[in-house]
Amino acid sequence: MQVNKMEVTPWDVKGDLNYDKLMKEFGIQKLPLLPPEFKDNLMFRRNIIYAHRDFGRILDAIKNKIPFVVMTGLVPTGKFHIGHMAIAKQMIFYQKLGAKVYLCIADIEAYNARGQSLEDSRKIAENEYIKGFKALGLKNENCDLYFQSERSKDAKKANAYYRLQNLLAKHATFNEFRAVYGEITPGKMVSALIQASDMLHPMLPEFEGSVPVLVPVGVDQDPHLRLARDMAKRIKTHKFIQLSSTYNKFMPGLRGGKMSGSDPNSFIALSDSPADVKKKVNKYAFSGGRATVDEHRKLGGDPDVDVSYQWLKFLEVDDAKLNKVHDDYKNGKLLSGELKKIIIEKIVTAFKK
Amino acid sequence: MQVNKMEVTPWDVKGDLNYDKLMKEFGIQKLPLLPPEFKDNLMFRRNIIYAHRDFGRILDAIKNKIPFVVMTGLVPTGKFHIGHMAIAKQMIFYQKLGAKVYLCIADIEAYNARGQSLEDSRKIAENEYIKGFKALGLKNENCDLYFQSERSKDAKKANAYYRLQNLLAKHATFNEFRAVYGEITPGKMVSALIQASDMLHPMLPEFEGSVPVLVPVGVDQDPHLRLARDMAKRIKTHKFIQLSSTYNKFMPGLRGGKMSGSDPNSFIALSDSPADVKKKVNKYAFSGGRATVDEHRKLGGDPDVDVSYQWLKFLEVDDAKLNKVHDDYKNGKLLSGELKKIIIEKIVTAFKK
Repeated sequence: MQVNKMEVTPWDVKGDLNYDKLMKEFGIQKLPLLPPEFKDNLMFRRNIIYAHRDFGRILDAIKNKIPFVVMTGLVPTGKFHIGHMAIAKQMIFYQKLGAKVYLCIADIEAYNARGQSLEDSRKIAENEYIKGFKALGLKNENCDLYFQSERSKDAKKANAYYRLQNLLAKHATFNEFRAVYGEITPGKMVSALIQASDMLHPMLPEFEGSVPVLVPVGVDQDPHLRLARDMAKRIKTHKFIQLSSTYNKFMPGLRGGKMSGSDPNSFIALSDSPADVKKKVNKYAFSGGRATVDEHRKLGGDPDVDVSYQWLKFLEVDDAKLNKVHDDYKNGKLLSGELKKIIIEKIVTAFKK
Repeated sequence: MQVNKMEVTPWDVKGDLNYDKLMKEFGIQKLPLLPPEFKDNLMFRRNIIYAHRDFGRILDAIKNKIPFVVMTGLVPTGKFHIGHMAIAKQMIFYQKLGAKVYLCIADIEAYNARGQSLEDSRKIAENEYIKGFKALGLKNENCDLYFQSERSKDAKKANAYYRLQNLLAKHATFNEFRAVYGEITPGKMVSALIQASDMLHPMLPEFEGSVPVLVPVGVDQDPHLRLARDMAKRIKTHKFIQLSSTYNKFMPGLRGGKMSGSDPNSFIALSDSPADVKKKVNKYAFSGGRATVDEHRKLGGDPDVDVSYQWLKFLEVDDAKLNKVHDDYKNGKLLSGELKKIIIEKIVTAFKK
């Protein structure tokens, strides 16, 4: 595998990822010792969620049964796919722990940054993303699902959300927006502002009042968090509790490298049939196996580069089973085709729930 | 009087105003032949309102008794003063002709461009601007008065107004915003967007539907109109009727030159007592009179530079009376002190109605 210079920005992830280096660069911290309910979650247990900012106040809220919010935004373009699972499962995990979920469909961002109509965004959100979140277990109760273009059927809430977006504009410079988007346009700038309101507005009196808000993201999204945190510090119309965030590692693309929404052979979509899953995995999944069965039996495979195994870390709840697959694959007992069969089953099951 | 190079932008008016040149430069047109109800209005009759864009469809609406909207925005800073009267009286004039009035209190703009809190904007709007409009005759019926920070108590309307603001961002460049504001900041840019939504949103189905909208302005505000018109042409989510606008000349400041909200001796405020009015006019009003009474009686005064006379053009409804003042002043029959007494009475009466 070729090693490329790492470059992570919100608009692109290039090269191979060194998560320790990323953590240092963005000034975010390693997760503290977590209570047992977190260790029950494979993403925390396996260090897939590996860093944070101000996560302590979320842990306190859980411990003391104080209300808190977990929020995420989805740009409704393309398919809901296996790469979205990490965030979706986190939202569901926190919902079970008592969090109020804020799920934002970023149709203003899809329009302004990608030129997608609001109608298309609504269709894709309903047929892909919302369906996907529900398939994975998100409940309607204690969930505020909304579109950026139509925040609320309650006028007080709608006014408050957009008012916050408008007022935040005073509290950032063009250069700060450039740090989030690279090249900026008026549309992208406005998207960054509404996104900051998405993260901060749950704390307004019209919504949940002064509760801590957690935003779980991939590390590439941290600039959005930093901008929202900076604006929240400067604005005087409301005293915001500083945003909490956690950072998760990316699931690799099916053929290795980055998973990309615009390359359907880099992911498995919710809408892929079991036959599609089988075909895609067998045809495209980057293998850590040897050229021949004999060689594989003799020398063993490399689970660390094998995408099926990497995906299994996100899907196999049982540590013992996962370890057995790892060892069996490494010592040649498990063949690439057999490993693929395991992951195919796991994917089909995950998307059927 | 010193003649300065004319420079008119939305953020500054410098030098002496050559309205014909301005009209040419901004590509706006002379008013067409107007129906009798317009000739009854001293601002139209005296060419104070002197140019337009797409005013024809407003005239058609009036003629055919088709609904139309007249809208204006007020940045609620400082005092409501005599310089605001021209716009206020136009709004009231159109309201009487059947227009639905949209009166926007630009508190988002006051916050983002001038750092004024929403609370202060609300107080100033209520104690100065709204009071002033009502004193001059604006009726509550057929008037939608709103604050940018809280568009509506109807959620559908609130969502629609801010949605339009957000979507418009895709349809302009940073350079186009610079043309409106000179130096731009994220806050000013967002203000320009909400201002465009202010002008265009009456046409949305959640508001009045497809009706023509007239925005009466001073010629310095035309770049805002041009930006809104350009964005309206480009956006595809709604087919907007192109905005209509008229352009009025400025009332000069009390001491000559520009009236300025930050210089209380350049205007008469609604809150000035009759004694204040008398004192200010007598002390500051730039006079076209001669150095001595004898000289004035012999040589006559100059009404064209006399601020009291210039103001009288905005306040004396009766053409014969106005002409008599003009002639009497010019031939020395009317003294400066007497002219000042006339305008003092007119101002006190105008602000008492």
